[in-house]
Amino acid sequence: MDNAIQDKDLMMDESIEKILELLEEKKYFSARDELMKYNAADIAEIIEEITDDSEIRMTVILFRLLPKDVLVEAFSYLPSDLQVDIVNEITDKEINYIIQELDFDDKIDVLEELPANLVNKILEKTPKNERKQINTFLNYPENCAGSLMTPEYISLQKEWTVEDALEHIKEVGMDAETVYTCYVKDTGRKLIGIVSLSTLVVTDSDVKIKDIMKTEYIYEDVDRDQEEVSDDFKKYGYLAIPVVDKEHRLIGIITVDDILEVMEDEATEDIERMNGVIDFENSDKGYLDISVWHHALNRLPWLIILMIAYIFTGMIVTKFENSLSTVICLVAYMPMLMGTGGNTGSQAATLIIRGLATGEVETDDVWKILWKEFRIGIIIGVILSILNFARVIFIDGNSVMVACTVCAAMLFIVIFAKIIGSMIPLIVKKAHLDPALIANPAISSVSDAVALSIYFGMATLFLNL
Amino acid sequence: MDNAIQDKDLMMDESIEKILELLEEKKYFSARDELMKYNAADIAEIIEEITDDSEIRMTVILFRLLPKDVLVEAFSYLPSDLQVDIVNEITDKEINYIIQELDFDDKIDVLEELPANLVNKILEKTPKNERKQINTFLNYPENCAGSLMTPEYISLQKEWTVEDALEHIKEVGMDAETVYTCYVKDTGRKLIGIVSLSTLVVTDSDVKIKDIMKTEYIYEDVDRDQEEVSDDFKKYGYLAIPVVDKEHRLIGIITVDDILEVMEDEATEDIERMNGVIDFENSDKGYLDISVWHHALNRLPWLIILMIAYIFTGMIVTKFENSLSTVICLVAYMPMLMGTGGNTGSQAATLIIRGLATGEVETDDVWKILWKEFRIGIIIGVILSILNFARVIFIDGNSVMVACTVCAAMLFIVIFAKIIGSMIPLIVKKAHLDPALIANPAISSVSDAVALSIYFGMATLFLNL
Repeated sequence: MDNAIQDKDLMMDESIEKILELLEEKKYFSARDELMKYNAADIAEIIEEITDDSEIRMTVILFRLLPKDVLVEAFSYLPSDLQVDIVNEITDKEINYIIQELDFDDKIDVLEELPANLVNKILEKTPKNERKQINTFLNYPENCAGSLMTPEYISLQKEWTVEDALEHIKEVGMDAETVYTCYVKDTGRKLIGIVSLSTLVVTDSDVKIKDIMKTEYIYEDVDRDQEEVSDDFKKYGYLAIPVVDKEHRLIGIITVDDILEVMEDEATEDIERMNGVIDFENSDKGYLDISVWHHALNRLPWLIILMIAYIFTGMIVTKFENSLSTVICLVAYMPMLMGTGGNTGSQAATLIIRGLATGEVETDDVWKILWKEFRIGIIIGVILSILNFARVIFIDGNSVMVACTVCAAMLFIVIFAKIIGSMIPLIVKKAHLDPALIANPAISSVSDAVALSIYFGMATLFLNL
Repeated sequence: MDNAIQDKDLMMDESIEKILELLEEKKYFSARDELMKYNAADIAEIIEEITDDSEIRMTVILFRLLPKDVLVEAFSYLPSDLQVDIVNEITDKEINYIIQELDFDDKIDVLEELPANLVNKILEKTPKNERKQINTFLNYPENCAGSLMTPEYISLQKEWTVEDALEHIKEVGMDAETVYTCYVKDTGRKLIGIVSLSTLVVTDSDVKIKDIMKTEYIYEDVDRDQEEVSDDFKKYGYLAIPVVDKEHRLIGIITVDDILEVMEDEATEDIERMNGVIDFENSDKGYLDISVWHHALNRLPWLIILMIAYIFTGMIVTKFENSLSTVICLVAYMPMLMGTGGNTGSQAATLIIRGLATGEVETDDVWKILWKEFRIGIIIGVILSILNFARVIFIDGNSVMVACTVCAAMLFIVIFAKIIGSMIPLIVKKAHLDPALIANPAISSVSDAVALSIYFGMATLFLNL
């Protein structure tokens, strides 16, 4: 890590200690002054840390002492559960002030988390026009383009000149992230073109907007999935993309800063699904904020499904029980063969699932992948078999025939596991489901059953059981 | 999926078919016209697909027929391996043209992939000043701030007025993504402040830059890790962040569009590491482009380490062999107990590793996490034990004592696996290593050993073996 930044982290840790002490000594103003050394994003981070180690009451006292503009900006950076906690502790008047001052998209995010009666109270004090708009935005389903967009964008008329446009921007003045692309609408509110601020700035002031606007542009439908929206941002590298309804009327824009969050959430969801955790609440809450019962509920389904799958594996072992008891040393290699099968299958599945997610691999590539994994399986299988042969004979002191059984089983298990691990995600994708849902646990349990069948088959062959 | 977009995907698939047919019939100009219906990013995607199903020679023919500006932009969107393939097929003059026209950061990306003799040839034809700069940029290590930045930014003088600044921007004119924040440097090239284009546009033209520039801003040191840079973008939501050297001289800027790629790469790296795939080449190549041998090399280390770990597991079984052969039905439950232990441990590890990566969980939370996983383990363990009790008695028809052995083992295995799975990543993080490196396979193998020890312990207890 780099020094300047490490210093900053250290500085923040020290400040947190200091503020906690000051709060304990009820030196609230000194605590506030310490906090004010930082920018809003850092203040939010410090407040989050302080709330972990102190009472929410203290956070609220500190919060109230901040200058109003800093307070609102810091509030917008807080995680949603802490926002709700704070809202529960302050007066309706204070809530109203904060909510009204927030940027539109932050406002929607906060309102979505608050209880309905509080939302209604806030909406009562909101001007009618904005109230209607807020209600529309609150109704967009989570995880779609509509839930990511903000209605705060610059509209231009196509007959305006560049000078008119710049004058207009100066009047309405707006947040940096929303001002960099301007949108041209016809009289029916339909989107007909886009102009970037950089184009406006470098173009002569008497040029008409209609002569410089781009009429071919990327847009999103309001109900499009957020993952696909984020793919478009990645593909085209834009800072903002307009959102339209079924009649191609412009209803909002999505800015790239919100896409960074979407990408992180989508990656988290994929990682959790791949490892058998399904978030039923589909919540944005962090690990520590989710209750023990909810954690258990998120993790039980796969464990129960797999336990049932293992009844089958148990039956394979039971069928072979009599033979096993005559060559009991075979039992000692079961964990290794199952474990290696599961791991090697998971490796293949991981690469394919991730490849499908990032678009590097497609379901049409099935034969290429099969052929590739088959060859990889042979290389890995042969190497592991040779190592195992040495182990079984020299370390464990077992017979050559036992070694042959273990090594032949290893070779075939690795090849089959690679094929199973790579093919299952492709089949699931072909069935239009999320490949990440066929988690690694499922692949392990299938490969366990295959591994044992192969192992006992080899034992019958080499040891005449 | 939404209709308009699904239609677009369909349209592109049809165009690809059509272009492939036209190329086969040598109707190159018609193929070019079909391609020209799309924007540069889409053209790059289509060219990638076509190269998959045809010869690189065809791609090059098609490529040469594109208008020069489209050609350069589409080239910048191609994956690096295809860029190199194309460069190998075209003349030095053509290479030179493309390279010179590319944006500076794209230019560096391409040059990094080309063989050294070709790079030297290109640099010979580059003006001296730029050559020096390219050489400096090529020397920044991969995955650091220096490798992400571009030197194309707008510098302003603090004594200028807003009008001077806008005039200057108009003169130098630049890519949209790099123009939205302007940088103010002192005479020693030290960064002293930043001004956003939106501020310039909404401020009166006679105001001095020094009166509106922000002197408190976020910056990155040139050798800072790209993962930390991307964390800053997520935290602050900026569109660009300046990069400085040890003397605080401004040497480039990083724009958010490049961060989207970093985030995807970092997520891929984490996912692969968590599932036991280590990319030694640390390449940007996709699954299909990596050779079979390289794939095998990436996957072998963990498999070999784990195979050695399983020698230990084998010893536990061997020690218990004689007892096992007297109650052979116990062997049938080994796969389930090991599998459930591994899966439940991986679930906990996944949540903690991801929590550490996104900053939701910290190493200081160790006691909270331990207490949480302990309780989750009890809930899940009890539920799975009850289900298993029913299975062992009613489905398998085994004795109550065998059922007690399996169920008591299940309860303790789940609790221990949850604790092991959650604690190992924290310990690894505390040791300043990447927790994702202690992959799920490792946690499975530790929990396998623990599971078998517990199981045989319970068997000794309940069945007096």
